[in-house]
Amino acid sequence: MCELLGMSANVPTDIVFSFTGLMQRGGGTGPHRDGWGIGFYEGRGLRLFQDPAASVESEVARLVQRYPIKSETVIGHIRQANVGKVCLSNTHPFVRELWGRNWCFAHNGQLEGFEPPQGFYWPVGDTDSEAAFCNLLNRVRGAFPGPVMAEILLPVLVQVCFELRQKGVFNCLLSDGDWLFSFCSTKLAHITRRAPFGPARLKDADLTVDFQAETTPNDVVTVIATEPLTDNETWSLYQPGEWILWRRGEIVAQGQT
Amino acid sequence: MCELLGMSANVPTDIVFSFTGLMQRGGGTGPHRDGWGIGFYEGRGLRLFQDPAASVESEVARLVQRYPIKSETVIGHIRQANVGKVCLSNTHPFVRELWGRNWCFAHNGQLEGFEPPQGFYWPVGDTDSEAAFCNLLNRVRGAFPGPVMAEILLPVLVQVCFELRQKGVFNCLLSDGDWLFSFCSTKLAHITRRAPFGPARLKDADLTVDFQAETTPNDVVTVIATEPLTDNETWSLYQPGEWILWRRGEIVAQGQT
Repeated sequence: MCELLGMSANVPTDIVFSFTGLMQRGGGTGPHRDGWGIGFYEGRGLRLFQDPAASVESEVARLVQRYPIKSETVIGHIRQANVGKVCLSNTHPFVRELWGRNWCFAHNGQLEGFEPPQGFYWPVGDTDSEAAFCNLLNRVRGAFPGPVMAEILLPVLVQVCFELRQKGVFNCLLSDGDWLFSFCSTKLAHITRRAPFGPARLKDADLTVDFQAETTPNDVVTVIATEPLTDNETWSLYQPGEWILWRRGEIVAQGQT
Repeated sequence: MCELLGMSANVPTDIVFSFTGLMQRGGGTGPHRDGWGIGFYEGRGLRLFQDPAASVESEVARLVQRYPIKSETVIGHIRQANVGKVCLSNTHPFVRELWGRNWCFAHNGQLEGFEPPQGFYWPVGDTDSEAAFCNLLNRVRGAFPGPVMAEILLPVLVQVCFELRQKGVFNCLLSDGDWLFSFCSTKLAHITRRAPFGPARLKDADLTVDFQAETTPNDVVTVIATEPLTDNETWSLYQPGEWILWRRGEIVAQGQT
């Protein structure tokens, strides 16, 4: 299994605090030693940092922790390999361009005997996760000849996630930089921080941040993670089969398959 | 104008020395202040580091200089913007997946009034360079239904480069991780280092490396750059219209349009 991390915010926000907690689970407090990655949208561009090395030992992870990259939409992942060897091309998140946007995807779970038909997007590595991502994008391309609003896209995304979930465990995060789609197959949690902000204390590292000192009263910042990252705040748990579409930190649409 | 940097080697080799020289031209000894990027292949995976900030001031560039990433194929670029604003999505190199491989591209030059037909790959940013890359890949996809050897691909690559060169200046580097294709429209140089290795001294920084201490007798390492990076070695200059296909540090094919 792996762990997911997502962020959706209405102002460019750094994710150093949550990332620091997650990284501890990559070989420190957790068993996810088989690589990690994180993608930060910056306008339509995407900064992607990845390493097949355990995150607690990764030089690149230390850079990301030292260097507060601000973004409105972030997708991160730490990996404990089950399908596919440990190498860069098997490291989440995966990225493809569709309709002139960078689509970024990370998956937690495992699909059994998943052999989708060949489409336009081909996997580079040999994980079930990247095969599922390519299949999802191929289905989206097949359904729409050009860009559509996320709300129009949703039925296709939800249908594909519903089908993939039949083949195993399929918790995922997907974004095109404008919205962040999240699907819970078994386990996913979220928290939205807004004024009045208070302190937050990481479960996995001896670190407390007072968000009041780092935010303005209009900031809305949602963090999504496989398991709650803090132990002094109330996280909401997704129900199995539940999906939520986020934009600028707020829920745009949600439902249950 | 911009500057290109490429490497093709028969063993994973770090490019810290050449990168250090190039980075000085990004706002230090040169005017290329509008971002930089470098992609390192690792198996079929690609590590991409980019920053729209000037390379001499970039935190991410310092990481890349400190942290010797070893790769057989590298494409780098520093930018002085002419078309497209300074932002991450306009920063080279550009990457797309084709046939399950990461294709990476960087361009030096400028194309006038280039408006290619829409195809499968769309630009994310608004540079002429990314539009040219998408057009090139669309032409490759149109010519071949699935993967072909580089030698079969070559006539299409050369033809597209020849056509693009009619529209302005088009020096470029392109790789799928297996081979490195280089096309010279106006200016490009290369050097192949092999045993007996000697010292090399950067033009743009006070730095000399003794490659003998860092290599084995069988290593073959080719570096390609817009202008020679060292001042005590003999670089070969490409002729305008000349192209070379490199693999594992050696010339596989070359020609003149």
